[in-house]
Amino acid sequence: MRRILLTIQYDGTDYVGWQRQINGVSIQEKLEKVLSVCEKMPIRITGASRTDAGVHARSQHAHFDTLSNIPTEKYPFVFNSMLPRDISVSKAIEVDTSFNARFSAKGKEYIYKMDNARHADALKSRFYAHIPLPLDEEKMQKALQDIVGTHDFKAFEAAGGTSKTTLRTIFSASITRAEDDVVLRVYGNAFLYNMVRIIAGTLIEIGHERLPVDAFQNAIESGNRLCLGPTAPAKGLLLYRMDYDFGGANE
Amino acid sequence: MRRILLTIQYDGTDYVGWQRQINGVSIQEKLEKVLSVCEKMPIRITGASRTDAGVHARSQHAHFDTLSNIPTEKYPFVFNSMLPRDISVSKAIEVDTSFNARFSAKGKEYIYKMDNARHADALKSRFYAHIPLPLDEEKMQKALQDIVGTHDFKAFEAAGGTSKTTLRTIFSASITRAEDDVVLRVYGNAFLYNMVRIIAGTLIEIGHERLPVDAFQNAIESGNRLCLGPTAPAKGLLLYRMDYDFGGANE
Repeated sequence: MRRILLTIQYDGTDYVGWQRQINGVSIQEKLEKVLSVCEKMPIRITGASRTDAGVHARSQHAHFDTLSNIPTEKYPFVFNSMLPRDISVSKAIEVDTSFNARFSAKGKEYIYKMDNARHADALKSRFYAHIPLPLDEEKMQKALQDIVGTHDFKAFEAAGGTSKTTLRTIFSASITRAEDDVVLRVYGNAFLYNMVRIIAGTLIEIGHERLPVDAFQNAIESGNRLCLGPTAPAKGLLLYRMDYDFGGANE
Repeated sequence: MRRILLTIQYDGTDYVGWQRQINGVSIQEKLEKVLSVCEKMPIRITGASRTDAGVHARSQHAHFDTLSNIPTEKYPFVFNSMLPRDISVSKAIEVDTSFNARFSAKGKEYIYKMDNARHADALKSRFYAHIPLPLDEEKMQKALQDIVGTHDFKAFEAAGGTSKTTLRTIFSASITRAEDDVVLRVYGNAFLYNMVRIIAGTLIEIGHERLPVDAFQNAIESGNRLCLGPTAPAKGLLLYRMDYDFGGANE
């Protein structure tokens, strides 16, 4: 038996998210269908991150076990020949059977994109949240520094989270602006359910001066979700990068 | 009567192109439908560039005449509230009634995007042509310099072109690479039918060493379409910028 790890990209616009659900088509289902055809038996695939409906990935990872004799490096061709064009597999490598795409992850980087033009740009409509009112990115950048480090992020978890501990480490976080594009990058060891979208939603409130610059600090100290802003729209979110232990960062 | 000039963006993936056609939905039709509703009469709109099916625009322009009392600066809100999210209007200005979106244009810049990764990236599938084999961008850049200047581009026009003269001026042209993204920019006074896609298709052949570096020179001298490569796929093309005479570049 071989365990294969895939690197996967998707435009999540037209899916119910990563995970199989009865109410629509998921990314996981699309990948499992390809595997079931080419392996001639149903095969389950385990994703690193259960991204929500509308969330995108440049670097989702997932593993599965196989008894087939398909060469590992051929898997991207197999998948890409059968997948719709909004899902792609860029890489397949063999990993140890103790490896788990979800639990072996050492770090993840998310990007959250905001279109800060007065009128939403049609070319950005799939991958950016439209924020028509001006954002003060300097205030946002200042506020963001309070989440860097190891903290109890209990206040940053949406209902439905299942984590045993809410302690997480953020390695780095930044806001940059290029013309109307305001982009949040957050790199951490792991994230709670909806954590990045809650961070983005809070930053938007801070950028509009509707929440104070110490909102994150207050939320970390109090553990109170009410210190933070709403969950920002899914479509701005992109799982950008993941780290695993086999020799450094894995794009 | 006022003449209004719009700046328009669109993701052309799901349209038959700019121009009204009987076999599907066009961008022009979508805009005219909004106008017909808010002006309470059928109004025709004249586009600067009749982009093909699947071609995108960041800076399409179009004009129309109105007798309504809708303030000019309100038109983007009117359009964006009724348009699907893959078409947007970023700007509306009043222009002289002698102005014509098509014939008053002094310059246009097109961008052609190529995804030069072995496996097509799902996140680029709408806006990039996938070119899986390695491209030699230095050869492409060298070849490209032959099109800069004023030349007879007769060989660069697809069947169906209706131009009276095939003389055109290219102000600048470049190829740049950033990781797997290979991007062509061409800036000129005007373009023949399919001209940029023929330039892109020829560059791809040059980048694969299937056409000589002097292919453009040969085509300009001979006027022979057979010196050039095939027309590259529509989805890589973006109408990026247009110049009009009222005070410089108009994005």
